[in-house]
This record gives sequence, C-alpha cells and structure tokens, in this order.
Amino acid sequence: MENTTQNRSVAVIGASGYSGIELVKILLNHPRIKLAHVIGSSTVGKRVDDIYPYFRGKTDLTMEPYQLETLKRTDIVFLALPHGEALKRVPELVDAGIRVIDFSGDFRFKSPEIYEKWYKLPHTAPNYLEKAVYGIPELFGEEIRTCQLLANPGCYPTGAILALAPLLANPQIGQRVVHESIAITSMSGTSGAGRKEKLELMFAEVNESIKAYKVGHHQHTPEIKATLERLAGRTLDVLFIPHLIPMTRGIYTTICLPLKEAVSWETIVNGYREFYRDARFVRIFEDMPPEVKFVVGTNYCDIGLAIDETQRFLIITSAIDNLVKGAAGQAVQSMNLMFGFPEEEGLL
Amino acid sequence: MENTTQNRSVAVIGASGYSGIELVKILLNHPRIKLAHVIGSSTVGKRVDDIYPYFRGKTDLTMEPYQLETLKRTDIVFLALPHGEALKRVPELVDAGIRVIDFSGDFRFKSPEIYEKWYKLPHTAPNYLEKAVYGIPELFGEEIRTCQLLANPGCYPTGAILALAPLLANPQIGQRVVHESIAITSMSGTSGAGRKEKLELMFAEVNESIKAYKVGHHQHTPEIKATLERLAGRTLDVLFIPHLIPMTRGIYTTICLPLKEAVSWETIVNGYREFYRDARFVRIFEDMPPEVKFVVGTNYCDIGLAIDETQRFLIITSAIDNLVKGAAGQAVQSMNLMFGFPEEEGLL
Amino acid sequence: MENTTQNRSVAVIGASGYSGIELVKILLNHPRIKLAHVIGSSTVGKRVDDIYPYFRGKTDLTMEPYQLETLKRTDIVFLALPHGEALKRVPELVDAGIRVIDFSGDFRFKSPEIYEKWYKLPHTAPNYLEKAVYGIPELFGEEIRTCQLLANPGCYPTGAILALAPLLANPQIGQRVVHESIAITSMSGTSGAGRKEKLELMFAEVNESIKAYKVGHHQHTPEIKATLERLAGRTLDVLFIPHLIPMTRGIYTTICLPLKEAVSWETIVNGYREFYRDARFVRIFEDMPPEVKFVVGTNYCDIGLAIDETQRFLIITSAIDNLVKGAAGQAVQSMNLMFGFPEEEGLL
Amino acid sequence: MENTTQNRSVAVIGASGYSGIELVKILLNHPRIKLAHVIGSSTVGKRVDDIYPYFRGKTDLTMEPYQLETLKRTDIVFLALPHGEALKRVPELVDAGIRVIDFSGDFRFKSPEIYEKWYKLPHTAPNYLEKAVYGIPELFGEEIRTCQLLANPGCYPTGAILALAPLLANPQIGQRVVHESIAITSMSGTSGAGRKEKLELMFAEVNESIKAYKVGHHQHTPEIKATLERLAGRTLDVLFIPHLIPMTRGIYTTICLPLKEAVSWETIVNGYREFYRDARFVRIFEDMPPEVKFVVGTNYCDIGLAIDETQRFLIITSAIDNLVKGAAGQAVQSMNLMFGFPEEEGLL
Repeated sequence: MENTTQNRSVAVIGASGYSGIELVKILLNHPRIKLAHVIGSSTVGKRVDDIYPYFRGKTDLTMEPYQLETLKRTDIVFLALPHGEALKRVPELVDAGIRVIDFSGDFRFKSPEIYEKWYKLPHTAPNYLEKAVYGIPELFGEEIRTCQLLANPGCYPTGAILALAPLLANPQIGQRVVHESIAITSMSGTSGAGRKEKLELMFAEVNESIKAYKVGHHQHTPEIKATLERLAGRTLDVLFIPHLIPMTRGIYTTICLPLKEAVSWETIVNGYREFYRDARFVRIFEDMPPEVKFVVGTNYCDIGLAIDETQRFLIITSAIDNLVKGAAGQAVQSMNLMFGFPEEEGLL
Repeated sequence: MENTTQNRSVAVIGASGYSGIELVKILLNHPRIKLAHVIGSSTVGKRVDDIYPYFRGKTDLTMEPYQLETLKRTDIVFLALPHGEALKRVPELVDAGIRVIDFSGDFRFKSPEIYEKWYKLPHTAPNYLEKAVYGIPELFGEEIRTCQLLANPGCYPTGAILALAPLLANPQIGQRVVHESIAITSMSGTSGAGRKEKLELMFAEVNESIKAYKVGHHQHTPEIKATLERLAGRTLDVLFIPHLIPMTRGIYTTICLPLKEAVSWETIVNGYREFYRDARFVRIFEDMPPEVKFVVGTNYCDIGLAIDETQRFLIITSAIDNLVKGAAGQAVQSMNLMFGFPEEEGLL
Repeated sequence: MENTTQNRSVAVIGASGYSGIELVKILLNHPRIKLAHVIGSSTVGKRVDDIYPYFRGKTDLTMEPYQLETLKRTDIVFLALPHGEALKRVPELVDAGIRVIDFSGDFRFKSPEIYEKWYKLPHTAPNYLEKAVYGIPELFGEEIRTCQLLANPGCYPTGAILALAPLLANPQIGQRVVHESIAITSMSGTSGAGRKEKLELMFAEVNESIKAYKVGHHQHTPEIKATLERLAGRTLDVLFIPHLIPMTRGIYTTICLPLKEAVSWETIVNGYREFYRDARFVRIFEDMPPEVKFVVGTNYCDIGLAIDETQRFLIITSAIDNLVKGAAGQAVQSMNLMFGFPEEEGLL
Repeated sequence: MENTTQNRSVAVIGASGYSGIELVKILLNHPRIKLAHVIGSSTVGKRVDDIYPYFRGKTDLTMEPYQLETLKRTDIVFLALPHGEALKRVPELVDAGIRVIDFSGDFRFKSPEIYEKWYKLPHTAPNYLEKAVYGIPELFGEEIRTCQLLANPGCYPTGAILALAPLLANPQIGQRVVHESIAITSMSGTSGAGRKEKLELMFAEVNESIKAYKVGHHQHTPEIKATLERLAGRTLDVLFIPHLIPMTRGIYTTICLPLKEAVSWETIVNGYREFYRDARFVRIFEDMPPEVKFVVGTNYCDIGLAIDETQRFLIITSAIDNLVKGAAGQAVQSMNLMFGFPEEEGLL
C-alpha cells in the first residue's frame, strides 16, 4: 500500500522549455515533493537560475545529463520533451519500473497509425500505447491513480474536451441535441508553441495580429476526436481550428452547437454542475463568459454556458492557462492522484 | 450629370472617435476631397491637432458646432456618431437634400422592430429606412452609386458578410452544401468598441486576456443575418460570437461550415475568385490563412479558404482593419462610387 | 510581549483596486493570517468573487461597510484608498489603538507643506505624520517592527530608493563619487495608475506607444528626494521622470550617474552585496541587467549594476512588480515584521 | 545639371528585413520613383508578396540576385544589409559611379578604429569613409544634396541627436548650461532589432517585460558621441542606455540635463523653434511630452521640452518611428534632397 504521508522525489527531463520551467516552479512550491533532478541535453551543467534568472534565490538546481540509474532512485519522472523525443526515452523508463508522466503527444493515442498520420513520425514504441493512461483527472481519475505511464493531454484538447464532456457523456442529452459535426475554435497565446526560435513567433510578427493556423490539419484534432468519441460512445466529425493571439499565456475555446432539438437552460446547466460536482478545478460560468485573465497562473478550467437569442444554438466557452491546466498543473494534479495526495496539493 | 473631375467638399460630424479620426486621416489625403468642416459637440472650438497631436503640422481644422446651413454647402456629410445619435440628425439632413453617409446602426435595417429589439432604443425615423442603402460596395455597388442616404455597415458584419457572400449568393453551391445554421466567430481589437472610458477596455483589463462577450446577443447578429438572407434568398439561423483580444486594430472572423454534401476545392475557390473578380479590395487566400497584420492600415478584406483533412468542413476566414474596411475606408469607398470617382481613390 | 505563533485577523479597506485585490490574494494564501473583513464603499454587499471572478472558488468574502467597532476586533487594518481618502480614516483608526498600514501618499512625509504642494490637497491630519513610519523593510526594519502607523511607500520610490540606498548611505562612496544631481528614469506598466476609467489608460491609447508624463512634476519626486537625503545625510537635487509603457505590471528604473571620481567595480559591487546581505527580497545583478519578467508576481527588487565602456558612468537599474514589492507585497513584508513573523512568510 | 522632373529608377538590396520592406512600401507610393529592382540572397526568385502577403495586389516585384550591371542602370541603390555586409558591396558600387544610400553602420564613422572597436569587425574599406556623408537632413542637408555615398543614421542616434542638436550647436547656450556628461536613455520596440530568429525577441520573452541591454556598450554610443561633438565643437562624455519594450515600432528617448546655470524657458524653446524653423519633419512639443503613437507610420521626430519644478534640470524627450524616421523614411528624405525633389515627397 502506498505511503501517502512522506515526501516524494521527482525528476524533470526537459526542464528548460516553457512547460518544463512551469513544472519546476510548481514542484519547488509543492509541500510534499522534493525536486531531486532536472535533466537537460544542451543545457547540462547550467544552473536553472542562469537559464531563468527568475529562479535566482529560489533554487540551486543544476541541469544534469540523462542517466537511467539516477532516475531509478526517484518516485516519478516527468518528460517535457518535444514530440518524437519522448518516444526514445519512455520504453526504457517504463521497463525499468519507473513511473512516467509524459508531456508529449507520443503516447496519447491507442493507434500508432493515427499518430503517424498527424505527427508525421514513425511510432517506434507501439506496444507501450496500451499501458498509457490519458491524463485528464476530471474524466479518467480512477485509471490515473494506478497507472505507470501517463500521457499528459495537449493544451488545446484539455480546454475543448472539458468543455464538451458533460454534454457528450450524458446519454439523455448528448445524442438528443448534439449533431455529429462539432466545430471547435480556439485562440492561444504564444507560449503554447514552445520556447523555440521561430520567425513566426517573434514579437514583431505576433503583436497586433491574429491568424488561424494549421487550418483543418492541427495534430490536436485526432486527440480531441478520440476522447470525445470515447465519452460519447459514437462517431463524431470533429473540426478544430486554432488561432494565434498576441498574448503570452492562455487558451480560449469557443464551441457553437446548433441544437437538434430544444433543450432547457436548466437541463444544460444542471447537467454541467452535476458532472463536475467533485471537480476541484472546474468552475461553471452560467452568468457571464469566462475570461483568460481569471485563470492565468491557476489550474482552473473555467467553462461558460449560453444559449442564443433564438434558442437554436448552445455556446460553450472555456478558458485555461495553457502552461498550468494545459500542461504542468494538470500533470501535477495527476501526480497527486498517483501518489494518493489530495488532488489540489501544491496547486492552489 | 455628375461632374466627376472637380474636388468635393465634405463635412464629418463626430470626428473625434476612433472611426471619425480615421476618416479625417483618409479624407485629408484624398486627392479629390476638401475636408471643409469637422463637427463636434463637447469638443467645439478645439483644434483637431489638440485632440489628436498626431495631426500637428497636418491640419489646422477646428471642431465646429452643428449648423445645418453650413452643411448644405457641402457635397456630402459623414456621421460618425453613436447609435441613437444619428437618428436625431439624419432626417433633417436628408430633408435638406444633403447626401449622408451614416456610420451608426440606426439605418441599417429595413424593419424598425429589429432595430428596437437589438439596440434597445425606439426608432424615431422609420420612414427613412427605405431610403437607406446598405453600403458594402462589393455587393451593392449599383445602389450605392445613386443613393442619398448610405448606412455604412458594422465592422463585424463587413468581415462576416464578405466571407460568406460568394457561397450563399451562388444558387448552385449555397443551397446544396450550406446548412441553414451558420455560426460565425470573430475576434476584435479594442478600437472597435470606440473611444469611451470603460473599465473593461482599460489596458490592464484587456491585456493578456481574451473573452467572448454579448454571447448570442450582439447587435450585429441581425445585420449579418438580414444581409446573408438577402444574398441567399432563404431563411438562415445565424449565430454570431464576438471576442475581445489584446490588440488595437483588426477583426478576424472564422466560419466553420459542415458540408451538406461533398464539393470540390476548385468549385469553391473558383466561385470566390469569380464572385470577386472586379473587387479591388478583396483578396482571396487559398494557400494560407489571412492574418490581421496583412490588412492593418489598408482597405482590404482578405478571405481565406480551406477544407479540412476529412473533407467534411469548409473553413472560411477573413481579416479586415476594423477602422478602415470596417468603417472609414469602406465609407470613403462608397463615397467614391457616389461621386463617380474611381473606387480606390485615396484608399491605396 | 507579542505572541508570534497564533494567526492574526486583518481587514482591508479599499479592496477592489489593483493594489487592494493583490493584497487580498496574498493574504488569502498567508498561512498565519485570517482575512476577516474586506471593506468597500460603492461595492458594499458584493462578493469579492463577483467583482473579480478570478476568486470564484477561492473565497466567500463579501464587501462590508466601514465600521470602526468591527475594525477594533482585528489585529491590523490595511488602507488601500486613493490619496486624500486615507487622510479621513487614519486619525480615527489610530486613536482607536488600531495598527494601520496605509497604501496612500498621505502619511509618507514629515512635512505637511510638501504633501500639500505636490498632492494639491490640504493635509488635515498633520500631527499624525510624526507617528508614521516609512515602510521599506530593507532600510527601516527596526522602526517598522514597533510602529502603529505604517506609510507603505509609493511604487516608483520603492524601485528608485532601493537602487540608490547602498551608494548614498555609504559615507565612503556616496559623497566621494555621486554628484548632488540625480536623475531617475522609470517605466511603468499601467496597473500602477490604478483601476480607474481614464481615457489615457485605455488599451487603444496605451498599446503600441510610450510617453513620459508629469515630466518634472510627479508627486513621487519629493518622496524619493526626502528618503535619499535621509540616507545620504545631505541635500540632493532629485529629478524623477516616469514613463507609461504597454505592459500591465512592473516598474523598471534606470539611473545614470556620472562619477565624480573613479571607483572600482569591486567597491561598488561589494558595497551593494554587503548592504543587502540580509535582505531576503533584494537580488543583485552584476552580470546582466534585471528584467521585469524575472520579478513579476514576486516580492523581489532586482538591482543591476554596470559601469560603461569609458568608466565615467555608473548605471543602476532596478525591476519590481509594482503591485507586489511596489504595494501589497511590501505591505505584507512590513506586517510580518510588525507581527514578529518571518519576513518572507506568505511571500514566496 | 540634375533634371528634377522625371521619375527615377531605384534598387533595394536586402529588401526583406523590416527596414527594407518599409522602404519598399514607401518607394512603391513615391510619385517620382520607379522601384525597378529588389535584390536578395536567400530569397532570390521569391515574389515580395509571397514573403510579405501584405503586398498582395500591390506589387509583382520578385527578388533578384545581385548584379552590378543591373544596378548601373538605376539612379540610386539602397543597401539595407546587416553591418559588415555593406562593407563588401559599397566599394564596388561607388567605384562604378552608382549613388548609394547605406542603412548599415559600416560607413557612419570617419575613423575605422572606432568602428572596429564597437562593431568588433575589421573595416575593410577605410578609404571610402571620407566620401560618406552622415545623413540627417535637418543637420547636414547641404552635404547630402551632392553626396554619392550616404550613411543613413542609426535609429537610436536619429532620435537622440535631433533632440540635442539645437542645444549643443548653439554657442550661446550649449557651453553655458550643458555639462560635458550627457546620459541618454532610450526605449525601443522590437522591430529595431531586425527580422531575426532570436530567442530574446520572441513574443513570450518580450511581452510583459522591460530590460535595459548592452548597458554602457551599445554600438550606437560612438555614433551619437561623434555627431554631438561635431555639433558642439567640444569633447563630451556620452552615455547611451537602450531598453527593449513590448511594442513593435517606435523609439522614445529621454535626456535629463542638470543645468550648469539657470536658463529661461523662452531661451530654450525659442532656440529649438529657430533651429528647426525650416525642418519639415521636426515638431516641437512644449506643452506636453511627445508620444510614440503620434509618430508611428510617419517621418516625424517629435521633440518635447520641459524644465522641472526646481528649475535645476532640462528634460528633453523625443519620439520617432524607428523604421521610418529611424531608417527608411529618413533615407528617402535624403534621396529626395539628392534628386532635387521636395524634401517631403512621398513621405506625407
């Protein structure tokens, strides 16, 4: 039986990206965690507070090289590596009996074909896919508690799936009122694209502009579709259109559903409230739409509900901090479940 | 017959808001226009370059009080007043035989009831509604050329209607592939809300955030719906969801249409190209989505077309500068038609 | 003798401005504080989480009216009111024996004349000025521990004074190398101007611009001058020039000092390190300039030191979060001293 | 004798950076210029409107390779290349008798040693330095009219030098009231750093932050110093401290001068007004400080004057658009002089 009172030792691989460094920040403040190792590649030997002077006076941690023996002595390993890189590390870690929380898209699908189609990479570890649990604690908490390999969801899927889950998972409402075609529009700040030197992410390119991108082809589409179908128990046509916005953090998602038949406001709202009754990090906004600034720096997913003037459309909006609930915070929330800690430990 | 070679004299009423001042900027550079009068109320007696030091060295114009006699001596009067204010001025101006371009929503509907429902104001001049021509030059150029009272469209409707017009107005495609439910999502910079001291428009409230607002209840909804129905020749369920974005200028509109039946990419693209063949200010983007920064400071409406991976959805995006194509530029484009000038005069 | 182990009960008057709400956020997370009352005027009866939906799920606090009897039952009262408003409340609170931390400029001067000259208000409580302790814990910690009335410093003065203190307070260096003329340039985000509906603070006015303001006349000038003179023990000519920047939070201060005589880099750096040896919230940057993003959301004041190519100038830079170290955080830091708590309690 | 009535043919080398593309935009609208060639290296064969879709419908120009013979048939060549690259091209162009306007720092100094010290590059064409005219039209217009090789000034130097010139060049005032130590503080938007993929210029790094950079070591320091000394006719200690601001375009410069002796406000203001009497693009602000938003997109340099409360300091501020008056606009202003066109042609 799991001893839930002592502190746990963790390692972070890929600690210098935006998600990785947010994870370091959360773990350093977590009362029951000792951040024992931060692992890099090009940054080995550098102090974390040299890479991010934000941490001066907060930590003496230094980036270490990847060494399996070191990791075996920790209670859990977070991988915050780019897609394709996790593929190379996860099998070894899992085989060594280490618990792993992976931030990449590499283990989010059950089918290697879908991965290969959307990520344009061969999947070299297909027999680890079944082991992996998709980590949205509000939906799959039971599986998360006992898993060894957790696939931490994408930032966009987190906001979209939490917004739609109560509707689709409800057999009385979902099938009756929601068409099979679902179009999801999201707007993201630039930190979601990672800490990479890309021309299109430069301040002078992003500021005072908006663009849709990867229109109809974003790799988060199949992740959203698969999870919604799993919840709904039927096939859905899912379209996902992301936009880049002059903002650092945050994702806002807007879903407009033409209703197949009339449904009362109370049915909708009560359905959502009931579904998320025990969810510590979901807040339902029925009186006003959520705003990104209400969730920045927090692990909340705020969900807004509205019906239009003509009562023909249901509009669902959601807001998350892409680096917290959309990445590091959700990972720690899952870790808390895996260690038997209170779900919100270190996240308030 | 209209003499199209001489310069025309114009007046601007309400010159100190964002749209009004953008109009002043365009008119001062227009080679065939003399900006004779700028009319204010609380600003009477102030120089334009005191209100906006941007204009120092560019103009000596001083805000004047409203006087009908003065306006009678001009060739056209622009009203850039808030909704409800135009209602009070337009009848008098029209009765005096003056040509008027009105920026407000007061004369955009044929039915006073729709106005009253969405603008929450009594319509005190309903018999001027028939006279008014809705001023999108790419769609209603013929009517515009000869009208006396032009209702300049709303910023959001401009981007949404131009994006959908070629599809809906095409009897072969529109009815075949487009459902009756159309959901339109837009994101706007803050200048669209006008130059008003509102808490929700302050920098520290807008920056690093996104919010949907007036969800399902925005007053531009019936304007979009009426114009799309006029183009399509059938009844449509139109939903319009605007978002406020940390950006000064620009509107981006994204429309995701589940297709009723398969339609070829060439049919779509050729339909759009053909429809806008003579449109000087519409650019079709078939290779990439448009971006706000491509249109800022210009009178262009850029329209992007895409079909998703599954071929089940058509995605239309559009980008405009809300103060130019969405307000002052489009008004000058219409004015050019009304004076028999080349459509692009003063707008390139 | 003060019992330092039990929790303390506090009230916040004026909790709905930016500084006030930041204070609420810090106090709600402070392990030894119970935030017992939030006091408003126009907001009485509203829940804090209605005013700021950020707090939904975090607090049930409701704005109460000001009542002296209630406040007597708390251990300390924070006043986050505009200048002039604190003047009306402080005498009554102090007379009732209540400990007070005042965020306004009303009790920061020893001389009512200076206040009246720069704040353009009559000072109606001049005999409370002697009681008031100016609350920069790094400089005046001893006085703070035992004071009843604390004048929490202005945001700009905090960044400027901490940057210059080690130099001016050092009799060996200050007089030898620093001229009597000191020009201080600061750049601030807009939250420093408070949560007021002002045209000049609107997004579309602030974004993509910079301006100096109150040039040579900002009311923080005499506060900086008086404190620097107190530290230096001599008269100084102090100029302070603030700038408004398109940013929400943060103040950056740059001070260029022509050197009266050569001074070694080691002397400067060691002087600063020694002076702030025990300062938990000052970080010295000798290798690179500080950046606002390293301090946002923290109580740190980062200070950068550099000597130019010609060795003729010393350049001192500092960065703070104006709402934390420049307001609410510094106030809590002082409160910790007043209660005998560790200085950093609730601030890491 | 120069024929000033016909159109001139020009080429731009390095047209794809921010300054280069701004130059293309200005030249395409210039009524007496034919932009005949745009020259790139990695971009050869690409259309300008593919690199910048902003230009769709505006130009069919395609990037060409560098060919001396082609350039010989133009009336002037602009070089918008990085420092060090211009060094390789200018000698050949000058030897071929072509008029050249160079945007780089390569020909701004008379002494190759200063260049080599601050730019850390060997100067391989020192005997072309004497030929080069430093191109601030307000100060050196006569030399510009007849030069063959023009060194277009740096963006920071333009704002700083124009702000100080009337004071330093005035023998009655400059020596009497201005100390030999001058500290200049500037804040720049990010476009000034060029269109380069640098981590420190990414949106998520720049947004919501401020930093000083190259403190005491920026390569524009000697350019400012040399020009100020030339105007003043004496040696000066010049310090220049740039800051990076979350803004795309614009430079704001603030200079605080402790006065050696009292000087009347009228003397200062009249001195500036007189000095810039004929300057079409300098506006003096004596009633309020300039703001970046008043000059964005224009060729103006706005200069603000103020004396502080104590009358001990003179504060000079200036605002420019770094890509227009700080680069492409100023270059075209000089070109107009070189061709005998009105100075403002194509720039209003």
